[in-house]
Amino acid sequence: MEGCVNQRWGGASNSAKEGAVGVYVRSVSHNVDKHAHTGSMGYEEGVDKIPSVALSIEDANMLSELLKKSPKIKGYLNVNSQTLPDKDSYNVIAENRGAVEPDKIITFGGHLDSWDVGEGTHDDGAGVVHSIEALRIIKASGYKPRYTLRCVLFMNEENGNNGGKTYAAVAKEKGEIHIAALESDAGGFVPRGFTMDGTPEQVKKMQSWEPLLEPYKLHIFKKGWGGVDIGPLKEQMVPLIGLRPDDQRYFDHHHSDTDVFENVHKREHELGCASFASMIYLIDKYGLGIKLEEKRWVILYFNQN
Amino acid sequence: MEGCVNQRWGGASNSAKEGAVGVYVRSVSHNVDKHAHTGSMGYEEGVDKIPSVALSIEDANMLSELLKKSPKIKGYLNVNSQTLPDKDSYNVIAENRGAVEPDKIITFGGHLDSWDVGEGTHDDGAGVVHSIEALRIIKASGYKPRYTLRCVLFMNEENGNNGGKTYAAVAKEKGEIHIAALESDAGGFVPRGFTMDGTPEQVKKMQSWEPLLEPYKLHIFKKGWGGVDIGPLKEQMVPLIGLRPDDQRYFDHHHSDTDVFENVHKREHELGCASFASMIYLIDKYGLGIKLEEKRWVILYFNQN
Repeated sequence: MEGCVNQRWGGASNSAKEGAVGVYVRSVSHNVDKHAHTGSMGYEEGVDKIPSVALSIEDANMLSELLKKSPKIKGYLNVNSQTLPDKDSYNVIAENRGAVEPDKIITFGGHLDSWDVGEGTHDDGAGVVHSIEALRIIKASGYKPRYTLRCVLFMNEENGNNGGKTYAAVAKEKGEIHIAALESDAGGFVPRGFTMDGTPEQVKKMQSWEPLLEPYKLHIFKKGWGGVDIGPLKEQMVPLIGLRPDDQRYFDHHHSDTDVFENVHKREHELGCASFASMIYLIDKYGLGIKLEEKRWVILYFNQN
Repeated sequence: MEGCVNQRWGGASNSAKEGAVGVYVRSVSHNVDKHAHTGSMGYEEGVDKIPSVALSIEDANMLSELLKKSPKIKGYLNVNSQTLPDKDSYNVIAENRGAVEPDKIITFGGHLDSWDVGEGTHDDGAGVVHSIEALRIIKASGYKPRYTLRCVLFMNEENGNNGGKTYAAVAKEKGEIHIAALESDAGGFVPRGFTMDGTPEQVKKMQSWEPLLEPYKLHIFKKGWGGVDIGPLKEQMVPLIGLRPDDQRYFDHHHSDTDVFENVHKREHELGCASFASMIYLIDKYGLGIKLEEKRWVILYFNQN
């Protein structure tokens, strides 16, 4: 198999087809360490649901060495994980109401839930704090936003994206107009820029602000990924923008027991907050050149069909 | 006083003028921690040479609080540092001889010495390894350089730059032609690009390679600082190029006891090696558009005068 996450996701089903009774998945990480890097996996229809466990790279290397020396070595898996029934949980929302057009919204957020190992600090505590801080910074600056700035801490990104789906469904039901949706869900490292899932014109508009952020060493301003939680808003033609922090250390921590508070660098994280706040401010101040009337029509059309 | 390093450098003389008998210098660092950040300082002529010590930010904050509560608090300094006589030491040089014009040289390096606290890993073990690795990578690739690639591990950057001065003096004496000199002396963090102390044409030439390195997220290609060790080559009209790693964490470690091996991130450091090797390769392959004959004349002129 090519790529990497597909080995974690599909490792069990693909191994079961070859007759495996269980599967160890070597961690998908740059760092050679003792920490197992976990994450979601799934089963294909009609294939035996064999157990699948994450193995740290050091442990995988050791197992590999042992197997070379003793090909008949035996092991056992004692797996006691289970999927519990869903429970009610909630997105958490705070607003700075628009001074001119409060019915038009700029949404920005991260997700409140995390994978079960570690503390979920980079994924996505950092994004949650980027978002709360952006709201605070803009308020503290005394700037009165034209549109409503809405900070959304999404629930259930890791396990089905129900927070993101529900948010978009409610927005559609209410006929809310979103100017843009921003997400920070790639860690609390040095901010490098933003990617946008939008029209070429919208991307160009964002790129026109590069000179304002270049002095702070932000340099990525291009078409690309928005975020999982804001993803369901795409159907409503909302431009989706993702904060892009430096990514070299992300998979040292992602879904492992090293994703803890002390592995976030205060200064780097503060620069992320300032960058996120700046992008929200720029969109509020200068817009993304969206034809709102046309967009309202499209949303009404979607709501009626 | 404005700026920051001048407080460390001139703190003693400036305080002595106000009648101080000793001075504590609060560390110049982003990070609020218990580690004193040290570095060179000097005395003005005719001013009392009072003792000067570095204090960590946490200790400086504590002292400040104590002084607010008890303005008459007394302290004492027990300083036993001394300046010993100079000893012989050496630059360490390795070459990959040029296949076409071996008498023309591309020099690149870092410095071998370090400040006395910590291990000197970011300052400048990282640059030393960047340089050795660049030499190794280019050789391992099978590429035959046009010019001689010379890796120089400079001695005595921290205390007088005698390695850099001697290197330039010997080059001048021998009439060596340097195509370029590169230095890595800003840590082993994620590489962000290069700055060049050269002519506008040379800077433009370097900038023309940005698209080749942009996929690896290098984005700084502009006029700027080369490096202390290569600095004395400037008189010989050699374009000086400095590797620019991400700088947010540099002063967490610089000249403090946290500048140790385990604070260099392997992957980030490897990316620095690859970037340094790439820039050396590009200069060897495409040149910097220097009029060598004119340059040779200037050097001969300098040598005769």
